[in-house]
Amino acid sequence: MGRDWGAVFGVADEADLFEHFERGAYRGREYRYLPDARHGVERGTAVLGDAVVRGFPSIPRVLVLDPGIPEFFDGPVTVEEKLNGYNVRVADVRADEWGAGDRDDPVGPLAFTRSGHVCRYTTEVVREGCDLDAFFADHPDLVVCGELVGPENPYTAHDYDGVDSVAFRAFDLRDRETGDPIPVDERRALCERYGFEQVRSFGTYEPDRAVDAVADAIDELDERGREGVVLASADGADRLKYTTSAIHRSDLEHAFALPFDYGRDFVFSRVIREVFQAVERDEDPAETRERARKLGESILLPAVETVKAVDRGEVVGEDHRVRGDPAVLDALLAQFRDQGLDVHVRDDRREGDERVVEFVKRAGATADKTAHYLEGGTLDE
Amino acid sequence: MGRDWGAVFGVADEADLFEHFERGAYRGREYRYLPDARHGVERGTAVLGDAVVRGFPSIPRVLVLDPGIPEFFDGPVTVEEKLNGYNVRVADVRADEWGAGDRDDPVGPLAFTRSGHVCRYTTEVVREGCDLDAFFADHPDLVVCGELVGPENPYTAHDYDGVDSVAFRAFDLRDRETGDPIPVDERRALCERYGFEQVRSFGTYEPDRAVDAVADAIDELDERGREGVVLASADGADRLKYTTSAIHRSDLEHAFALPFDYGRDFVFSRVIREVFQAVERDEDPAETRERARKLGESILLPAVETVKAVDRGEVVGEDHRVRGDPAVLDALLAQFRDQGLDVHVRDDRREGDERVVEFVKRAGATADKTAHYLEGGTLDE
Repeated sequence: MGRDWGAVFGVADEADLFEHFERGAYRGREYRYLPDARHGVERGTAVLGDAVVRGFPSIPRVLVLDPGIPEFFDGPVTVEEKLNGYNVRVADVRADEWGAGDRDDPVGPLAFTRSGHVCRYTTEVVREGCDLDAFFADHPDLVVCGELVGPENPYTAHDYDGVDSVAFRAFDLRDRETGDPIPVDERRALCERYGFEQVRSFGTYEPDRAVDAVADAIDELDERGREGVVLASADGADRLKYTTSAIHRSDLEHAFALPFDYGRDFVFSRVIREVFQAVERDEDPAETRERARKLGESILLPAVETVKAVDRGEVVGEDHRVRGDPAVLDALLAQFRDQGLDVHVRDDRREGDERVVEFVKRAGATADKTAHYLEGGTLDE
Repeated sequence: MGRDWGAVFGVADEADLFEHFERGAYRGREYRYLPDARHGVERGTAVLGDAVVRGFPSIPRVLVLDPGIPEFFDGPVTVEEKLNGYNVRVADVRADEWGAGDRDDPVGPLAFTRSGHVCRYTTEVVREGCDLDAFFADHPDLVVCGELVGPENPYTAHDYDGVDSVAFRAFDLRDRETGDPIPVDERRALCERYGFEQVRSFGTYEPDRAVDAVADAIDELDERGREGVVLASADGADRLKYTTSAIHRSDLEHAFALPFDYGRDFVFSRVIREVFQAVERDEDPAETRERARKLGESILLPAVETVKAVDRGEVVGEDHRVRGDPAVLDALLAQFRDQGLDVHVRDDRREGDERVVEFVKRAGATADKTAHYLEGGTLDE
């Protein structure tokens, strides 16, 4: 490694930082990635030879729009939609940076998941869906950040109007190595120029005016079952998020379908978001009761269905469907298995020249604990 | 200390065990108590000079009655009501065991809370309510275990028919030093003989038959808003508990009235109990939806009320009312403050020769975090 990594990451002891990196491989080349934030370096940061791709920063949340927004921002705020898919960064790592590995092809643009894995499946999707070559020819040191959305999605499947399979929606352009964002207006103009589909903007407002603009956007998005908004200062440096009741319930439904895997971690934070939203909206008692009913249903009903499914001997877990080049889908399943996931293929078929695989990531804790308690097992609480 | 504590507690290294004990005092005499289970010694175990009072053991729970009960028991099972109050052990520690301290009065029967504190208030309540002298004259080495229930209750306030203030209900007699229980029939006969009011028995059954008996008892108790049942083998050694939907919701209402103090710890376990109960009862969809609605209301509504109360600048916490001898109530409030609780007296008045104090144990996390988020504070999740 020829670089001064301490200077790159702003840490005194680079060895101490690199201890927390894990190793991955993409088509014969090795890379390192940081699965959790450490020493001020973002989760998902990847090092590929001499190239660095910084992780996408975690965005703080407010529980009340007023005074949450005016307290946080002191200049114009752009309100953009937050989508429910998985966070992807696309960077053009070059062979002369990474080293030859055991292949002699050029590397080309790569897609990184939130935790820093290079995902070959996602890489193929963004290469097919976006004109990356033109963009990276002009901006080799930027990373394109976006959400991979749609129903045929190996990480977070969710329906979006006009997306039959899977699609990329850009929401940020950042310096690959420093992680610094470019200003919002410039980013939206660049995405437009290079033809990247991008997240919807609800406009730019002074902080006091943004409160009502966000409330209106949230009403509309909630109605349509969408996730929420991200607010950004003009320079892109300050971000804040706020989400709909619809996504709180959707998160809970997902988590309580696999209660012993996800329920415990998810439930409290979503309840708290609902509580403050109910208070800020100054709901009447009937509206709050209706919110409570929906909350209870999104917790209890999926868990009841899963316990019944385990009782019938079914495989329980996260169901996904993916479509694409057969070799790429093989690489995707192999990647999940390498990560220790227990992948069970439910269906594997051809549709034209595409392969379609339906699989489940088995939820071991839910399967095992549910079976144990159904057999009369005890617990100590 | 004249005793071989390693032998008493069955541990190799008594110093290692005693490191985990904390120190308390009762009217000038010191004692030690174990606030968490360690080395196989129960939480709440107390050492007073040469005397030992073992902690009350934690009782395992099943999530399904069938096959939970027949898997756990291999002989007759007595089904008794579990009450919603606080767990108290009463032992007759003598001055010749404990040492004189700085007082020359006899010690007399003492009441220990679940965590091992000697509570002067509870001691007065059980001394007034039970004929302890006759019992301990005949059975000096037993500890009387029971629940202190009723609305005027400094720990867990809950209404019970026929209890205007506070009352003791015995549910166990155990060897003070070994913690071994005496057989259930003998225990119920002894309580009867000495006039201790005791928890209701729903009868004794073979394990297979106990399933229906418990289901019927739970139906009746749930209807009346009561907590549940404890099952015991004839020798008292094996115990199992099962609880009503009513108490799951009541626990959640209590926890989410103070969400940042209790919500996170309580919510998942209660949801899981509801899920398995819904499945075992083979409810139709409408019944499960009704259960979900009540679950959602018991989570959301109390939290919304508390956030509004904090917004109005009110003190939030656990409200209690107690009644009794003025000096004893002073001792109770002093004891809570010694334990680090932030006690705020809302009202303090005389009714006849009794003093009545209404106080709140302030919930610091809920007060502080709620105010922070209402002021627009951010969070990272």
